[in-house]
Amino acid sequence: MSDDSIYIYGRNPIEEALTTEGDRIEKIFVRDSISDSQLSEIFDLASQHRIPISHVPGSKLYDLVGSVNDQGVVALRSEVAYQDFGNWLDSIDTSTYPAILLMDEIEDPGNLGAILRTAAAAGISAVLVPKHRQAPVNATVYKTSAGTAGRIPIVRVGNLNQAIMKLKDEGFWIGGLDMNGDQELWDLEVDRPLAFVIGNEGSGISQKTLEHCDYNIKIPMSNQVESLNASVSAGLICYEWRRKHQSS
Amino acid sequence: MSDDSIYIYGRNPIEEALTTEGDRIEKIFVRDSISDSQLSEIFDLASQHRIPISHVPGSKLYDLVGSVNDQGVVALRSEVAYQDFGNWLDSIDTSTYPAILLMDEIEDPGNLGAILRTAAAAGISAVLVPKHRQAPVNATVYKTSAGTAGRIPIVRVGNLNQAIMKLKDEGFWIGGLDMNGDQELWDLEVDRPLAFVIGNEGSGISQKTLEHCDYNIKIPMSNQVESLNASVSAGLICYEWRRKHQSS
Repeated sequence: MSDDSIYIYGRNPIEEALTTEGDRIEKIFVRDSISDSQLSEIFDLASQHRIPISHVPGSKLYDLVGSVNDQGVVALRSEVAYQDFGNWLDSIDTSTYPAILLMDEIEDPGNLGAILRTAAAAGISAVLVPKHRQAPVNATVYKTSAGTAGRIPIVRVGNLNQAIMKLKDEGFWIGGLDMNGDQELWDLEVDRPLAFVIGNEGSGISQKTLEHCDYNIKIPMSNQVESLNASVSAGLICYEWRRKHQSS
Repeated sequence: MSDDSIYIYGRNPIEEALTTEGDRIEKIFVRDSISDSQLSEIFDLASQHRIPISHVPGSKLYDLVGSVNDQGVVALRSEVAYQDFGNWLDSIDTSTYPAILLMDEIEDPGNLGAILRTAAAAGISAVLVPKHRQAPVNATVYKTSAGTAGRIPIVRVGNLNQAIMKLKDEGFWIGGLDMNGDQELWDLEVDRPLAFVIGNEGSGISQKTLEHCDYNIKIPMSNQVESLNASVSAGLICYEWRRKHQSS
């Protein structure tokens, strides 16, 4: 991957990209003077893939792609290939008791990059990244992951809680990392498919998602420290899983 | 602690600070038009504490402290109290088999903050921070540590390799985190005082320091990942020590 994500411009190229690789399109920018009807195909495709659309002044498009015939529309194409949740779920073999990570509003690209890198190193099977209120896997994330972001399936989901329901249907046990957890890190049992939820840097796992967790994992802490950096917490749970999984 | 480190200015206040709390002074800025002989006391004290001195234009001093009678000298005083290595070494009880961390050219303040936070949480006894080629414990570090930097002794050392020799004399075993390590993370033995060296984000532990290590610890990694984020690596070793130490 190059250091920068790539912008595509013009109606046909973007329609083409949405059709053939919709899961790589991060965001679409539309000049605010363009009427919606002129781009109805693009809007339909974007809606199917749940891709956010921003209406912006023409000068913003110029900032993105310079002096080209952009036809009033620019798309940001991610260099990292996201996987579709449904396809990924169909392909995963739960009989090997895999583990996956669920990102719950991780805001800092540096944390996300470090988490992807650690997950790839630990042998985690996938990282699920919601589309909203969550750092996207952009060039900064890729850089912080030291280029390892592409070595682990990154699965984009529209709604984390709905994804959790489907994961449960497939036999996954959902564990949230939470300072008030009922289970200690080292009591983790790995004889089943596991999904670990990593919460927001400031506020932790959102209440609704916490209610969807089957159990919550607590990392023991001294000196009145209440939480760890999100990437450190994720690292501890990934490697606790690895320790037990490789010896089982 | 406030969000910012504090500047002290004027000859007497700085001389006083150097005498009573020399280990809190990070750096001294001297106006380049001042002759060395005018500040000989300050230079002597700074040299004793190995505090770096920068010769700068008067405008730089103005940027730091504004329109005050700075007498040509400004000192940056850390809000975090560093401990003196000798004093700390005299006070440590090695019979409880403590563990400490040694920072070897950690450059990113965010990493250092996350490491201090994790070390405090894991019950590590101290973090040794060299004075040179190493992020100082500044306001950014304190912030990234989520305010926990003050809950663990931070020991400033002039030369890391000399500190390692003295630690060995006190019975510490020195383990470096290194991708080519000879011992796997989970084979750690905790029935002795331990010091773990965390190396630079890009280049790892420096060659000279690596030669001073008694053994090197390798974190198992899949997917051709070669290293982890420094704070994640540090977190894994801190908590592997914690896991074994609390059950021993």
